[in-house]
Amino acid sequence: MSKVAFIGLGVMGFPMAGHLQRKGHAVTVYNRTRTKAQAWQERFGGEVAETPAAAARDAAIVLSCVGNDADLREIAFGPDGIFQSLGARAVHIDHSTTSAEVARELASRAEALGASFLDAPVSGGQVGAENGTLTVMVGGDLQAYARVESVCGAYARSIRHLGPSGHGQLTKMVNQICIAGVLQGLSEGLAFGMKAGLDMQAVVEVISKGAAQSWQMDNRALSMVEDRFDFGFAVDWMRKDLGIVLEEARRNGSSLPLTALVDQFYAELQRRDHRRLDTSSLIKLLREP
Amino acid sequence: MSKVAFIGLGVMGFPMAGHLQRKGHAVTVYNRTRTKAQAWQERFGGEVAETPAAAARDAAIVLSCVGNDADLREIAFGPDGIFQSLGARAVHIDHSTTSAEVARELASRAEALGASFLDAPVSGGQVGAENGTLTVMVGGDLQAYARVESVCGAYARSIRHLGPSGHGQLTKMVNQICIAGVLQGLSEGLAFGMKAGLDMQAVVEVISKGAAQSWQMDNRALSMVEDRFDFGFAVDWMRKDLGIVLEEARRNGSSLPLTALVDQFYAELQRRDHRRLDTSSLIKLLREP
Repeated sequence: MSKVAFIGLGVMGFPMAGHLQRKGHAVTVYNRTRTKAQAWQERFGGEVAETPAAAARDAAIVLSCVGNDADLREIAFGPDGIFQSLGARAVHIDHSTTSAEVARELASRAEALGASFLDAPVSGGQVGAENGTLTVMVGGDLQAYARVESVCGAYARSIRHLGPSGHGQLTKMVNQICIAGVLQGLSEGLAFGMKAGLDMQAVVEVISKGAAQSWQMDNRALSMVEDRFDFGFAVDWMRKDLGIVLEEARRNGSSLPLTALVDQFYAELQRRDHRRLDTSSLIKLLREP
Repeated sequence: MSKVAFIGLGVMGFPMAGHLQRKGHAVTVYNRTRTKAQAWQERFGGEVAETPAAAARDAAIVLSCVGNDADLREIAFGPDGIFQSLGARAVHIDHSTTSAEVARELASRAEALGASFLDAPVSGGQVGAENGTLTVMVGGDLQAYARVESVCGAYARSIRHLGPSGHGQLTKMVNQICIAGVLQGLSEGLAFGMKAGLDMQAVVEVISKGAAQSWQMDNRALSMVEDRFDFGFAVDWMRKDLGIVLEEARRNGSSLPLTALVDQFYAELQRRDHRRLDTSSLIKLLREP
């Protein structure tokens, strides 16, 4: 198979790039902290590059998964960035959660080179990345999408093209807004029930059969009651995502009263040094002094 | 079979009492507006009583489904109320959504008569009542519960004993709190996505496979996008339920910031004369001027 590059070996990128190599792609990786790239190579094989530009050179497909807008700009537009070597006809597909604005900017710069950029944030978390069961929400050129769809299949269960550049990111934002509401409602319901002395396991069994049901209730309610918050997607990351959401809402004129409130609750969790707990830890604010 | 009484033939009680009669129980009904009781009798047979006391006389089981605490007090403790004729060993099971306080009061007064009272609010709405697929959340004496469980099976798919008096109502409160959060988050997510110009059907298809999923998303997202709010459980009723929740929270010291906020949004829907729309109409506030 032709060369693919993978930039950013965090908790998501590390296993995603591994799945690609295992599926037979010739993967060249780059990571800011070089030791992690070496650990990846020891485990999966493949090649390690010294810079994003070196990784992207001669690659038909360049994948990336980094932290935020600034990180993406750096690996793309920096002096040793992807866009220094991105080939005409190459596709850069980015799995980071970023603003729609930076996605459109990269798409426009890629187009000027004769290449393509796709914004393709994922959901499913660390477990989804490890098991290869992520959901990928893609925005950008449809022909470029057709060329990468099967490649993403190495680590995704569901891949969907949702519209022009930015629409992958905007879909992810809708996802995060919905999760914020579900989690705060669930937190208040559970904390209230505990205060009332209810048998919360029985309560959850009953109400999860009806109109109050949610994925979060099915998968997190009991661990929330037990004060366990070790499911990976951390408060710090959610705070970053909600920052992007609220900035976009300011731009497009959406009113998000609940999302803004929940963002503030996550800020309080950060202040209490609960940055690494998972997003269901909202309930802590309703129970701790 | 022995005589059962059913007090309150609203959109819930009317079909519930009908299921009981159809299952072979000898049902005597009472309704404040007598014409509705007559319509019930024309459709299902059974008997019509002139007062709650007359309906409850000699009944082994008295069921009720009325509007609020005051209505329940009136049919129970009024001059022609159930407690005027409730027999020793009889069970009064109430399907109204009320405070836990009034439930405990009725349980205590029933016990003084040698009878029993169970608080047993339902979920599943008008459709659940019509199809006989309600969920019943029961609080109170376990032996009394054992005597009515199979009777409730006439209109319920799931019946669960959740603890002492009041625990049925408190479980229903947890249910309503969770729904408030889910619906406001979903409303904000959908309104934001529409403002951003996304294909909302595609967005919902993708995100409903992951951590943002909820019963409300699966069953209401597309009708919300289409501005349809005709699913029965109305803003006025949700406002009543959240009033009960917030009063109980004031009593037990729970903090419910999101629930209190959503209650205010429902107040705004009432002010805009959207009282009869279903609870998913929260999205209207984010879209209408």
